[in-house]
Amino acid sequence: MSTIYFQKQPRIVGWYSVAGKKESEGPLGKTFSRIEKDEYFGEKTHECAERKLFVTAIEGAIQAAGIEPEIVFAGDLLNQIVSASFAMRDVGLPFVGMYGACSTMALSLINAATFIEAGAAHTTVAAAGSHFATAERQYRTPLEFGNQRPPTSQWTVTGAGATVLSDTKKSPYAVTCATVGRVIDYGVKDVNNMGAAMAPAAADTLERHFINTKTKPADYDAIFSGDLGQIGEEALRDLLKERGYDLGDRYYDCGKLVYAVQQKVDMGGSGCGCSAVTLNGFIMDKFKRGDYHKVLFMATGALLSPTTCFQGETIPGIANAVVIEEVTE
Amino acid sequence: MSTIYFQKQPRIVGWYSVAGKKESEGPLGKTFSRIEKDEYFGEKTHECAERKLFVTAIEGAIQAAGIEPEIVFAGDLLNQIVSASFAMRDVGLPFVGMYGACSTMALSLINAATFIEAGAAHTTVAAAGSHFATAERQYRTPLEFGNQRPPTSQWTVTGAGATVLSDTKKSPYAVTCATVGRVIDYGVKDVNNMGAAMAPAAADTLERHFINTKTKPADYDAIFSGDLGQIGEEALRDLLKERGYDLGDRYYDCGKLVYAVQQKVDMGGSGCGCSAVTLNGFIMDKFKRGDYHKVLFMATGALLSPTTCFQGETIPGIANAVVIEEVTE
Repeated sequence: MSTIYFQKQPRIVGWYSVAGKKESEGPLGKTFSRIEKDEYFGEKTHECAERKLFVTAIEGAIQAAGIEPEIVFAGDLLNQIVSASFAMRDVGLPFVGMYGACSTMALSLINAATFIEAGAAHTTVAAAGSHFATAERQYRTPLEFGNQRPPTSQWTVTGAGATVLSDTKKSPYAVTCATVGRVIDYGVKDVNNMGAAMAPAAADTLERHFINTKTKPADYDAIFSGDLGQIGEEALRDLLKERGYDLGDRYYDCGKLVYAVQQKVDMGGSGCGCSAVTLNGFIMDKFKRGDYHKVLFMATGALLSPTTCFQGETIPGIANAVVIEEVTE
Repeated sequence: MSTIYFQKQPRIVGWYSVAGKKESEGPLGKTFSRIEKDEYFGEKTHECAERKLFVTAIEGAIQAAGIEPEIVFAGDLLNQIVSASFAMRDVGLPFVGMYGACSTMALSLINAATFIEAGAAHTTVAAAGSHFATAERQYRTPLEFGNQRPPTSQWTVTGAGATVLSDTKKSPYAVTCATVGRVIDYGVKDVNNMGAAMAPAAADTLERHFINTKTKPADYDAIFSGDLGQIGEEALRDLLKERGYDLGDRYYDCGKLVYAVQQKVDMGGSGCGCSAVTLNGFIMDKFKRGDYHKVLFMATGALLSPTTCFQGETIPGIANAVVIEEVTE
């Protein structure tokens, strides 16, 4: 499929990010709408805390927008996306459950914009989130086990982000086009090296996006990948170079931005929340300050499950890209 | 949100259903495009078999349509929707992962139609599927355990269905409008009584759909719910009666249709595959024979995970409704 162009230019009229203590101590700490230092967020389980992150982000974004949305697009990493689904009991709006692993923030944003473009709704919400403790328990081992993390591993971000899009309220920031990802599998089997598994999908989406839109990296103030981490970022740079694109110094990985090296997170951050809080914190902040006018936001996902790994499968990846830009009326 | 009206009336230009042995022995057996009697589908695990059901259904629908689609919307019940995701490695098209539990066939169809309405694509595919053995292992106990099933339980359908929509190819059957579901939770905790958990969500979607579209049950040749089963069907009839709607004899539940009583499936069929094979087998067959001209297809989902159950949570439900009708040019 070619890139989707949104003629209605759905505007970003509200955004909100809520992040945990570790994230607040990282380089992006000051850009988050809210910090929640209690890893349980006042709840009795980490799963309930993750759910509360979702409700907080969605309600925060709606309040910031000052306009009532009609439908929510959201997803998370937990089995059966229970964080998003259960959060929607409280939000009460029609709900489209999305799963794109850590690419979910971009995937939700694309669908939320497409519903506006189709005239199916005037105001929509896109959201995604994750929690370090729930992801560790589900994908790896419970925290109580105290296992040692391999140096290629990444740290799941505790946080959620939500974006409100609308074609009725004014805002200078719009979602103008998007490229939906394909599932790409280069045969990586190491679950502790997700960056390497996702980089080929990121390269595929970026290349298709550049070709379709006849743009090059220099046409964007910044290009973000979701959570490739250090290894994945390097792999993506190399893969793009082979295809004739030099990402240069305008390319950043949310996973590398979100934590400082001294926070001991190995290759960087990951999880649906990683790109969600970076978009709805740092990136929108930069737009508001006038530093960014056009950004290519590409969240990346590793489409594995513990079962597929146990069964010896390789790890397919996917990457979804959205262009956010400042537009005149 | 109000009901979505598709002005472009995306046409159903191809459909395909593949189902297992038990399903082939049920009342709908003759309506399926393909029967696969080997529960492993020639693969080494049931998970791989489920994935192959997906590829078979998607490729079958594309072949039936005779037109190349641009994007696929699909989901399943397995953790991280790995059946759909891994199947997309073989299909190779851009992919939007959906999760609506057993409501996924309708949810995918709505999104596939909306992308066409938005002009984001001309030809799209919606797909969903499930496998009895993978669902038992993940949600309940592995088959080898040989546990006794409570009489309120349902039997996960082994099968997958896919529908190709297009605004470029002609066909008399169109997706004309849709109502996206809200997450509704009446506090049911019994994981062996999903019908009761989903019925309130089904009632909410149906009532909103009837009010929005100013239609009543008699305006449809048939109304289908996904997999409420016997208890859920009765609960839905009662809930709708309280709201002033008599579903009468035009209402059917795919879960009740798919198996015969003597097949010992307790309350009936369930799983993403249940409504997917019924739509892409029995229902489209009825359209083709001229028995149906306008159908309200509402797939229903229970948004639980084993983790939420272990943590004592109740079971939220959701239901997504799509109108399929015969249209003149």
